[in-house]
Amino acid sequence: MACAPDPSIDKNSSSILHQQLKKISRIPASWGAHAWGIGREDPRRAIHALKVGTSLTLVSLLYILEPLFKGVGKNAMWAVMTVVVVLEFTAGATICKGLNRGLGTILAGSLAFIIELVAVRSGKVFRALFVGSSVFLIGFAATYLRFFPSIKKNYDYGVVIFLLTFNLITVSSFRQEDVVLLARDRLSTIAIGCAICLFMSLFVLPNWSGEDLHSSTVRKFEGLARSIEACVTEYFQDQDKDDKILDNQASRSSIHIGYRAVLDSKPSDETLAHYASWEPRHSMQCYSYPWQKYVKLGSVLRHFAYTVAALHGCLESEIQTPPSVRSLFRNPCTRVAQEVVKVLQELAISIRDHHRCAPDVLSDHLHEALQDLNSAIRSQPRLFLGSKHACANSHVLMELNSSKQTATRTTLPSFKTDSTSLLERRKTKADQASERKERGTLRPTLSKIAMTSLEFSEALPFAAFASLLVEMVVRLEMVIEEVKELERAANFREFTGHDYLTIDLTSNDKMRNPNGAPLDNHTVSTAAE
Amino acid sequence: MACAPDPSIDKNSSSILHQQLKKISRIPASWGAHAWGIGREDPRRAIHALKVGTSLTLVSLLYILEPLFKGVGKNAMWAVMTVVVVLEFTAGATICKGLNRGLGTILAGSLAFIIELVAVRSGKVFRALFVGSSVFLIGFAATYLRFFPSIKKNYDYGVVIFLLTFNLITVSSFRQEDVVLLARDRLSTIAIGCAICLFMSLFVLPNWSGEDLHSSTVRKFEGLARSIEACVTEYFQDQDKDDKILDNQASRSSIHIGYRAVLDSKPSDETLAHYASWEPRHSMQCYSYPWQKYVKLGSVLRHFAYTVAALHGCLESEIQTPPSVRSLFRNPCTRVAQEVVKVLQELAISIRDHHRCAPDVLSDHLHEALQDLNSAIRSQPRLFLGSKHACANSHVLMELNSSKQTATRTTLPSFKTDSTSLLERRKTKADQASERKERGTLRPTLSKIAMTSLEFSEALPFAAFASLLVEMVVRLEMVIEEVKELERAANFREFTGHDYLTIDLTSNDKMRNPNGAPLDNHTVSTAAE
Repeated sequence: MACAPDPSIDKNSSSILHQQLKKISRIPASWGAHAWGIGREDPRRAIHALKVGTSLTLVSLLYILEPLFKGVGKNAMWAVMTVVVVLEFTAGATICKGLNRGLGTILAGSLAFIIELVAVRSGKVFRALFVGSSVFLIGFAATYLRFFPSIKKNYDYGVVIFLLTFNLITVSSFRQEDVVLLARDRLSTIAIGCAICLFMSLFVLPNWSGEDLHSSTVRKFEGLARSIEACVTEYFQDQDKDDKILDNQASRSSIHIGYRAVLDSKPSDETLAHYASWEPRHSMQCYSYPWQKYVKLGSVLRHFAYTVAALHGCLESEIQTPPSVRSLFRNPCTRVAQEVVKVLQELAISIRDHHRCAPDVLSDHLHEALQDLNSAIRSQPRLFLGSKHACANSHVLMELNSSKQTATRTTLPSFKTDSTSLLERRKTKADQASERKERGTLRPTLSKIAMTSLEFSEALPFAAFASLLVEMVVRLEMVIEEVKELERAANFREFTGHDYLTIDLTSNDKMRNPNGAPLDNHTVSTAAE
Repeated sequence: MACAPDPSIDKNSSSILHQQLKKISRIPASWGAHAWGIGREDPRRAIHALKVGTSLTLVSLLYILEPLFKGVGKNAMWAVMTVVVVLEFTAGATICKGLNRGLGTILAGSLAFIIELVAVRSGKVFRALFVGSSVFLIGFAATYLRFFPSIKKNYDYGVVIFLLTFNLITVSSFRQEDVVLLARDRLSTIAIGCAICLFMSLFVLPNWSGEDLHSSTVRKFEGLARSIEACVTEYFQDQDKDDKILDNQASRSSIHIGYRAVLDSKPSDETLAHYASWEPRHSMQCYSYPWQKYVKLGSVLRHFAYTVAALHGCLESEIQTPPSVRSLFRNPCTRVAQEVVKVLQELAISIRDHHRCAPDVLSDHLHEALQDLNSAIRSQPRLFLGSKHACANSHVLMELNSSKQTATRTTLPSFKTDSTSLLERRKTKADQASERKERGTLRPTLSKIAMTSLEFSEALPFAAFASLLVEMVVRLEMVIEEVKELERAANFREFTGHDYLTIDLTSNDKMRNPNGAPLDNHTVSTAAE
């Protein structure tokens, strides 16, 4: 009964271990091609790998060179171990792990020493019982501690090291008398390992978590701007010429990439901000750099991105406004979107260059664009009537009527005149290929819903689109406020281009910061004066 | 210049280490209160901690008991180390780490043996150079390997252990002749450690990642259902009596919690599915359990949740439809939402109980509710006119006109009649307190936008709400299709209540599965027959 003769199940019946082994055997062939690409994508990876190799060679000298080996002896293995587990990609992560390891080792050593003081005066049996029960209790307590959210976030690794060191010292002290010496030697070799790691990650071509966080925030703004631009372009594209299709395919894939990166950014933001807070680079200023403001900005950006996702939903929706209706609102909608995109791009530039954004970054142009959209909607009142009441705009009405006459389960033509383009659009979206496949099988029920929807006012989906655009502007203000908060907290350079701006208000390509040449990524601390 | 006399910056000027130490000193006071709550929230945590304590005590016996110590000697520390780092909360994670550790150790041991074969025949200096350069090369290669996405996902820990073991063996073999013996002893003690871990996590009150994934998927459906219900209730609540405010406050907080949990679920889903794929529990059947289908369902649910987030955005928007307009569509909208909620709850139950959902889970009731909404919208055509063209519905128009006369930067009364309730609503939302604080400072610009929006057709935001409801139904179908896919792949029990259903079609509380008593969580494998 459990083994249905389904071939797909039969195919899956080999054990997981077998699958994993097969995967491993297939890996070498693909790695050759991969490896170069991975290094080219981010050359810091190759540099980091070189740094690890160098550190390991350095720490091996403790064994290889005779005088060094005499100094530390067998304990040199702790230095090797420390280098392998502590040296991380960014400086902040290395410092965080190194301090956790040091702290854990010291605490564990002290506790083991206290227990040793008690145990050493007692008989063999009592000692065994005492060591056994203290191992159990400390093991329980430390593991339970790891479930505390605050510990989990900051000191998880430290607690593991504490538990490890405590057990190793306590248990091996059972067979070895000089536990203090043992703890001291271990600590000194761990210190050597940590020192090599810190030197390598702080002084040899360092990678800063803070910089990663900063540039990923800038990239988020740029991605959102691209998403919105591509979204609006695609929504009104049916009027475009056919030879723009290639451009559109590129823009289509960018819609999804742009906002999805923002929506999925929560864990990486939090990790980077956590590591960045350990980095001394900005703390050498007389204030600590507000990395948590970046996390907060990320959360407000996610809130903004929900609207972009909903806007994208309007493109993908089964219920579509006919192109003839869309084209009526093409210009005002595009203008609003362009203004939003412009603001996002300006914010990206101001964050990237560490200067404050213009006080009136939310310009009057956006205000005007919203008013234009408003007028456009009010100038077409009949569109917002239900289909039966639509007595003007006969072209659209005709389309609608013909759709009513021919509406069967399989053909839903005129109202969804863009259904072919919709289908074609689906095929090109490789990243959602799986969802598409599912949709194929559910066509019958979908058409049931689509038929119901057919009779909705055709302006309904467009109203949703327009309303989302307006909502986006409102949320954009929250984003701007958060950016300004960040700029204040991080002491970005004052905005200096305001005088130029007021003189040159009508020009589209304003020089908002004529004095500020673009800063290199590596001058963050000097820029934050 | 870097030290502006801002007190907030001055306050932050103490070093990060100091802050961390202060945090640690504050921790003991809060832990007492926390600790009990953390255990009560999920008693498995306390059980896991007990298991770790027991395992550590068991492995300590290798040192404490004389005959055991004679067998393994100093290498017993590797067993202790293995228990500390390998024993994880769920069985899948433990197996994954244990296998990674074993595989890494074996590979590293083999490689170290080969290198030793070459090195042993050469002179001291050549040997030092050879060992040093092989440490560098392997260190570089292994670290670079960790950047490969496929390695990072499945074998990251294994590569770290490989690198660690390789270095320890190669380097210590420099001072010790019998490297084969060293590797063998180490492997045997690691095997003892792994065996204790596997026994503890597989046979003593095991926690299964697969079960966590299963129940978190069920919770997602329930959370989304609560979110939608609370969202729609709140949207139309202004007509409710005042004494319902307490109920509403509870529902308000549940809106956010429900869909946010789904939106943030990506990393935990992927981790759980990865660990679950290592668990033997379902693989003892003659097919591997389709954990990746849960991840895919999670992704489709996130797609659905974007719409819920957008619906929630309609509640929070600065541009609100007046209550008088909303009340016109209260019943049809509520019905659509209720039907969607009902479907989500049925899906949650069918997944929880491992039986297939009804083939017509997307019922005709939903179809009817959509049609009612459609009729309701079409029966109020004038609402969808721009404000100047609205010649009926004089109450709303009057409101609008009065708002135009009194619209100043500070007072925006009649059109946003629910602005007081909106403000009050904001105050109650503790989880978005920070965003609210920001908004306080941006009131002047917001009102500029709000004034622009004033003149939009008042039906525009409602149209967005209605359109999102319809879009939600369309996405619900994708969710259903994905659930059915999962049910097929996981061989859930057939849906048996269909006959009852067709007879009892009009009843609201249908008995869809009269034969299936709810299954206990611990009978997953027997249910998946």
